[in-house]
Amino acid sequence: MNKEQIQTWFENLQENICQAIEKADGKSKFHQDIWDHHAVGGGRTRLIQNGNIIEKGGVNFSAVGGATPTKILEALHLERADFFATGVSIVMHPKSPRVPIIHMNVRYFEMSNGVYWFGGGIDLTPHYVDENDAHFFHQSLKEVCQRHDADYYPRFKNGADEYFFIAHRQETRGIGGIFFDHLKEGELQSKEDIWKFVQSVGNSFTGIYTHLMKKNASISFGEKEQKWQRLRRGRYVEFNLVYDKGTKFGLDTNGRAESILMSMPPLAAWEYDYKCEANSEEERTISLLKKGIDWV
Amino acid sequence: MNKEQIQTWFENLQENICQAIEKADGKSKFHQDIWDHHAVGGGRTRLIQNGNIIEKGGVNFSAVGGATPTKILEALHLERADFFATGVSIVMHPKSPRVPIIHMNVRYFEMSNGVYWFGGGIDLTPHYVDENDAHFFHQSLKEVCQRHDADYYPRFKNGADEYFFIAHRQETRGIGGIFFDHLKEGELQSKEDIWKFVQSVGNSFTGIYTHLMKKNASISFGEKEQKWQRLRRGRYVEFNLVYDKGTKFGLDTNGRAESILMSMPPLAAWEYDYKCEANSEEERTISLLKKGIDWV
Repeated sequence: MNKEQIQTWFENLQENICQAIEKADGKSKFHQDIWDHHAVGGGRTRLIQNGNIIEKGGVNFSAVGGATPTKILEALHLERADFFATGVSIVMHPKSPRVPIIHMNVRYFEMSNGVYWFGGGIDLTPHYVDENDAHFFHQSLKEVCQRHDADYYPRFKNGADEYFFIAHRQETRGIGGIFFDHLKEGELQSKEDIWKFVQSVGNSFTGIYTHLMKKNASISFGEKEQKWQRLRRGRYVEFNLVYDKGTKFGLDTNGRAESILMSMPPLAAWEYDYKCEANSEEERTISLLKKGIDWV
Repeated sequence: MNKEQIQTWFENLQENICQAIEKADGKSKFHQDIWDHHAVGGGRTRLIQNGNIIEKGGVNFSAVGGATPTKILEALHLERADFFATGVSIVMHPKSPRVPIIHMNVRYFEMSNGVYWFGGGIDLTPHYVDENDAHFFHQSLKEVCQRHDADYYPRFKNGADEYFFIAHRQETRGIGGIFFDHLKEGELQSKEDIWKFVQSVGNSFTGIYTHLMKKNASISFGEKEQKWQRLRRGRYVEFNLVYDKGTKFGLDTNGRAESILMSMPPLAAWEYDYKCEANSEEERTISLLKKGIDWV
């Protein structure tokens, strides 16, 4: 497959995911913005707001190019080259504290010198960890991975634990998921094999998240749970602005700020030195925001 | 003066500012946390919440030491050395959108190899720019600077415009103020002269901010203004987590997260691609968030 085919597949993925989210939400529709990149290409940002289930969610498709940023060339010890990058990136902030935040990204990057890789991941950030949901989520991802390579799930699950970590809080962002980067052909896989895996990850999103939406959206909650949700969203902001490489790369390369920061929650809170009540559900959630938990 | 005298002066500054803020607020008192640094030293974080005027405000004093972080040594092409750093850092988030957010920092850094410098600044972030307040603020800072050096105000005003800039939004954080770093003795100033200037900056805070608190706290506001305040606080979060060097340095060197992030607002909002109404006060404020405005 070539880059045009990958790009077209990602465009269709965005369309399919938006349709499925709209159907599961049952109220709001995605609003679309088409934008140009300052160098080459552009994107299509879709945003859903004030739905029955989704308070603010974005599904962004982009295909951009130009001169490869110096930082990347230096990191790889490469000479000047043009790059092309395309992908789909999603963050959903649900209205209910009982529905988890989800993030997915699938992306392809290539340079004019022949270097290429795929990257991506899905991770779940429950405001309250529900062990059954955590099991379902990881089991689903494990099955996706195992259709392609027996090493993928343990390797990329570990990748997510390492990546989605808020070092200054010594907390994972949520219950992890899978995360992979710089994935390219090797002894066992062709480029085509990797691409099929990335497609499987992309295709798994809808079934996983609409299940979690429907299962949890009708659980009642009150002001106490909403306050906690806003504090957890504050942590989400901290991760995205301090650590997330996609956000950094986007802002550093003068990307479209509104599309990059569509991941920000609608409302977030910070309380100095907040302490959970002893033996509360909140305290239990914090105790589960750790690397290395086997959810399967 | 030696580092112990500088440290003691900063401790007293924290105390004096807290007393003045409590008096001007008239309701809440500062809560104090004393903490140890993981290497050497520690600090005293004071937080005021849910006051008449201040919704969340922090005044942090610290005096820490240890091995100089590699990043600093590399930037300065220096061999291994221990460092000592002490300072006071303040952020006030008022309840009313009509009262501006303020930030001040004064600090001293020295290394065992004799290298030292002072740094600091004050900048104002009005949710709604009031030209009279902006004039008062800059005029006050200009007077402080001019008692020490005629070049200071233009130089450090420009420094604030450059530093407090949210590049991905192409907006200044607020109306600026003064910002200086790596200030040390030169042809015209002794170390004692610089220290006197830093003391003047520290001493100017109370008069400037209590004036702005009292002048604006009784102006009425509604839901519309509060919504705007939450969006502007979102920008404040973006600046602090993406650009602020003090925040980065603190998080990178495993500092006390709660003290570093006391600068976060109590509640902040993000709305995708928010557009101000034409000819509104909000639009006017945005038009004034630019570098190079002469407020004096």
